[in-house]
Amino acid sequence: MAFITSLQKKKVREEEKLYVIEGDKLVKEYLMSGIPLRTLIAKPEFLNSIPSAHKNEIGEIIPASYDELKKISSLTTPHNALAIVNMPPKDIDYTHLRKGLTVALDFVQDPGNLGTIIRAAAWFGINEIYCSDNCVDVFNPKVIQATMGAILHVKVFYTDLRVLFEKASAEKISIYGAMLEGDSIYSRKLGETGIIFLGNESKGISEELQPFITDRIMIPKLAGKKPGIDSLNVSMAASVIFSEFTRGRGRDF
Amino acid sequence: MAFITSLQKKKVREEEKLYVIEGDKLVKEYLMSGIPLRTLIAKPEFLNSIPSAHKNEIGEIIPASYDELKKISSLTTPHNALAIVNMPPKDIDYTHLRKGLTVALDFVQDPGNLGTIIRAAAWFGINEIYCSDNCVDVFNPKVIQATMGAILHVKVFYTDLRVLFEKASAEKISIYGAMLEGDSIYSRKLGETGIIFLGNESKGISEELQPFITDRIMIPKLAGKKPGIDSLNVSMAASVIFSEFTRGRGRDF
Repeated sequence: MAFITSLQKKKVREEEKLYVIEGDKLVKEYLMSGIPLRTLIAKPEFLNSIPSAHKNEIGEIIPASYDELKKISSLTTPHNALAIVNMPPKDIDYTHLRKGLTVALDFVQDPGNLGTIIRAAAWFGINEIYCSDNCVDVFNPKVIQATMGAILHVKVFYTDLRVLFEKASAEKISIYGAMLEGDSIYSRKLGETGIIFLGNESKGISEELQPFITDRIMIPKLAGKKPGIDSLNVSMAASVIFSEFTRGRGRDF
Repeated sequence: MAFITSLQKKKVREEEKLYVIEGDKLVKEYLMSGIPLRTLIAKPEFLNSIPSAHKNEIGEIIPASYDELKKISSLTTPHNALAIVNMPPKDIDYTHLRKGLTVALDFVQDPGNLGTIIRAAAWFGINEIYCSDNCVDVFNPKVIQATMGAILHVKVFYTDLRVLFEKASAEKISIYGAMLEGDSIYSRKLGETGIIFLGNESKGISEELQPFITDRIMIPKLAGKKPGIDSLNVSMAASVIFSEFTRGRGRDF
């Protein structure tokens, strides 16, 4: 059981190529999506509720009590089920860049923010996120929790963003940098393909990456010049920008 | 000093009609905005950096060391300054309803969500929020922190939302309820006045308040019917909806 809690550390996750998911709903969604679980640890009631077809795809099943789950959970109150999952391959598929909208994140540090951005991306039909290597790890339990299941549908890659942007530039793919000064997202034409690029919670997009931006965009502040309203939280900004990029498509649904 | 930490409890705040703000930037913004501080506790360096005109408006000034600040802070790492402030009067001014957009929140429980909604409201020029009595307290230190200073510009009232909505109905003011099913915010005409109404993190708007909704609105999901993408976080939904309501105005800035 100490092995499971050791997976709360990024270093161990990286070495073992494993991560942990928690929660009845999330575990069931993984099973329904056909993602094989290496180990499932759950209350007997939960295990009984799983169709046997799904059970066959689980490497190892360990019944556990509330107290046992509490010991291995990263949460104060454990769920009924917790599973260990193999990390997906990390090879970056750059062909997504040409196919639609993608997201690049520079040094996003807060697990809640990354999780929320993944959740928003999934909602708005954006399925690839490229993170700089110094972003918080997507397999951090707090990130997984904050995605509320959306982690299943969004591929998150870690890379040197300069390499990504050089590839994008070579293919003339727009890089929309979210800045405090730029063209209003409401008045500017936004493409159906392109990279939506967001930066660190307090510092924004780092200086050395700014030259790659082809289109500086911003969310106009309607508060005027009042003090104390300096910025939007990065995950709120992401939600608003994703909405604005995809709003033309909303009519069909 | 025990008195200050006791203000982390809602009951004590209500009895004393006082709340605590933390952080160099926030304290300075309060001073600049002319809000009188009852007590300012700060490192000597911070106290020296305050103009004497502002100092005269502070009831009591107490120099403190890092260790002393750590003892009274609600944060793991204390800031250089912390202040006790009088709660503003709570009388609800319903005339705002006719003047522009306002927000109503039903049973929003998470401090981070309320703080983030206040921050987004301020950004998009919305200055009044009506909370149901079972929402998290706006003077909870975590809410104050999450507003990042925007608390200065948004009035937050606590009330029985039925009373609010009856007043709004009598004046034919639209109540836009954010639901999972309704008219797309992108295809529907959204008013320049009206109440944007958002519900609890997991349960949405409570059943007994739904009849007051005049316009059911929703943010279309572009993810299709994939499992695991059930909803947007309430503060993300708020940001997107505020943006959509005010986007026509963005061109002027």
